[in-house]
Amino acid sequence: MCQLLGMNAKNPTDLTFSFTGFAQRAGRTGDHVDGWGIAFFEDHGVRHFVDHQSAIASPVAELIRNYPIKSTNVIAHIRKATQGVVNLPNCHPFVRELWGNYWVFAHNGDLKDFAPRLHSHFRPVGTTDSELAFCWIMQELSKSHAGVPSIREMTLTLRELAARIARHGTFNFLLSNGDALWAHATTHLCYTERAWPFSKVTLSDQDLSIDFSQRNSRDDRMALVVTTPLTQNEQWTPFAPGELKVFVDGVHQDF
Amino acid sequence: MCQLLGMNAKNPTDLTFSFTGFAQRAGRTGDHVDGWGIAFFEDHGVRHFVDHQSAIASPVAELIRNYPIKSTNVIAHIRKATQGVVNLPNCHPFVRELWGNYWVFAHNGDLKDFAPRLHSHFRPVGTTDSELAFCWIMQELSKSHAGVPSIREMTLTLRELAARIARHGTFNFLLSNGDALWAHATTHLCYTERAWPFSKVTLSDQDLSIDFSQRNSRDDRMALVVTTPLTQNEQWTPFAPGELKVFVDGVHQDF
Repeated sequence: MCQLLGMNAKNPTDLTFSFTGFAQRAGRTGDHVDGWGIAFFEDHGVRHFVDHQSAIASPVAELIRNYPIKSTNVIAHIRKATQGVVNLPNCHPFVRELWGNYWVFAHNGDLKDFAPRLHSHFRPVGTTDSELAFCWIMQELSKSHAGVPSIREMTLTLRELAARIARHGTFNFLLSNGDALWAHATTHLCYTERAWPFSKVTLSDQDLSIDFSQRNSRDDRMALVVTTPLTQNEQWTPFAPGELKVFVDGVHQDF
Repeated sequence: MCQLLGMNAKNPTDLTFSFTGFAQRAGRTGDHVDGWGIAFFEDHGVRHFVDHQSAIASPVAELIRNYPIKSTNVIAHIRKATQGVVNLPNCHPFVRELWGNYWVFAHNGDLKDFAPRLHSHFRPVGTTDSELAFCWIMQELSKSHAGVPSIREMTLTLRELAARIARHGTFNFLLSNGDALWAHATTHLCYTERAWPFSKVTLSDQDLSIDFSQRNSRDDRMALVVTTPLTQNEQWTPFAPGELKVFVDGVHQDF
């Protein structure tokens, strides 16, 4: 199994603190050592970093811990291989273009007997069940909508598609196009929201604290979604099995 | 105008020396300060780095200068904006997936009255003429071939497509799918090949030399393609106007 981390923010925000704790799970507080990756949306552009080294050893991960890239939507993944060899094409997150938007996807879980018909133009490059599921989702989205749908419509379509894939096993995933962050859980995902006046928080995986009230303003809002809670002193709300949530401007949306 | 750098190698090779010289053109020996990017193929996976800062100032470029990523096909670009604003979606190289392969593309030049009909599924995310040309090439390739064609067939198709776009202006480009590097020039491109016994070379843009005979073995071969010669003491062969060349295993192919 793997570990997921997603962020959706109203204003561009850096993720160095949270990523520092998250990356500990790649060898120190977890055994997710088979590669990692992270994608940052800046407007509708994407910075995409993947490495088949662990997120502890990787020089690219060190860059991410030290270089505050400001983004409104981030998806990160550290991998413990269950299907597919350890190589670069199998590192999450995956990126595809649809309707003139980049789409970023990362998956935690394991799908059995999942062999959907790919009759459209989205094809996996690597050998993971995850990238196959992503390509099928992109194909079905492109059939369901002629252009970028509203976030509400996207959410309804995704709920149907996620349920069909989840019949095949564990399907926790994060998906973003830069406008919203969608998150689906069958087993483990939880989220927290941060807003004014903000507070001092401490990482669960490392003895490191930060006072967000010193770094954020009244207008800032952000939501974090993660496999298991990243911090000790924030309220993390678990997803129910089969639940798909969407976050816009740092806030969980009720549809 | 912009600057292009491509490498095609028989065995995975790092590009730190050449990139160090190339990056000088982003502010020191050139004025290409409106962002940069580089993509490395490792097998069929891609590491893709883009930044809208100049390649001199960018912490990501510093990583690339210091972290020897070994790759068989690399495409790099430093930008001086002529069309499209300076932002991340407009940074080259661009990446798309076709036939289960990633394709990486970077362009130097300027196209006028270029408004091809995009009736397929490849759409630009940014606003450059370059990404539009890339999407049109991907569309036409997918119509011309049912699956990945041979490198020879690809080359013949690309020659026709490149000539059609070049009617609209300057169209120097690099394209790779990890198996080969294609390069097309209408104005400035040149290439060199390095092979055993290798030699000591000195950068044109910086007082830095390297003895490649100390770092390479008898089995290594590589070709470099660049806008203007990167080194002082190697033979750089200029492309003829309208010429499309292909490089495989570090060698220029005669078709």
